[in-house]
Amino acid sequence: MTEAGAGSTGASAVPEGVALTVDDDLLGVVDFAKDADGLVPAIVQDAADGTVLTVAYMDAEALRRTLATGRSWFYSRSRKEYWQKGETSGDRQYVREVRVDCDGDALVVLVDQHGRGACHTGERTCFFRTIGTGPGVPAR
Amino acid sequence: MTEAGAGSTGASAVPEGVALTVDDDLLGVVDFAKDADGLVPAIVQDAADGTVLTVAYMDAEALRRTLATGRSWFYSRSRKEYWQKGETSGDRQYVREVRVDCDGDALVVLVDQHGRGACHTGERTCFFRTIGTGPGVPAR
Repeated sequence: MTEAGAGSTGASAVPEGVALTVDDDLLGVVDFAKDADGLVPAIVQDAADGTVLTVAYMDAEALRRTLATGRSWFYSRSRKEYWQKGETSGDRQYVREVRVDCDGDALVVLVDQHGRGACHTGERTCFFRTIGTGPGVPAR
Repeated sequence: MTEAGAGSTGASAVPEGVALTVDDDLLGVVDFAKDADGLVPAIVQDAADGTVLTVAYMDAEALRRTLATGRSWFYSRSRKEYWQKGETSGDRQYVREVRVDCDGDALVVLVDQHGRGACHTGERTCFFRTIGTGPGVPAR
């Protein structure tokens, strides 16, 4: 979905996001208090092909902004500030779905990834390096 | 890939894992020291269809065991102990690939998921609940 709907250049050439339809009961399932800093990991996954693009962190406010704007907002643990993906790079993430896990301490965010990709290096995914490979279920 | 290679019942009916082929230079990229507890999130993804199955945590020893055994090992933040997925449930994860992200503080683990699935609830994925849905890139 990269470049889908994107104009030639500039933030003005791309559409704004649209607020998500939210299940308030499930929103309450997210257990931000479990973490000392009130954060949960948000796994950002390409809605088109399932590639895991990046992992970042959300607190309650970052999740609220994500749901309200339809674009991904995170909280930076190192810079201690909110940031919206693509705000400086233009590589925006338009959200299709937000899921919560069984114990409420992790999120999956399915997105349409605009622009080059999710990684600040220019790669499409932040997970572009493979440490190890194996056969999976071995033959017997 | 569920049930692939699995016998009727019992741990003895399923194969052991196989050690992964490891890139030692890339292994050194993983920055466990960034976190106070020496942990990084490990996003476990189904190698067959890309479903994000679960998020758990690894320290250096859990990653070492995962690479050495070809099955997923984690460290429990609440129980403060190592655990191997499927050891009690039988729902084992055989590892096909381990990837590290750009800044070395998150892992993606691609697995063949044996048995019912990854979630202790009996669901295939821990992320079986949807908080919000949206259109992704909106029409203009």
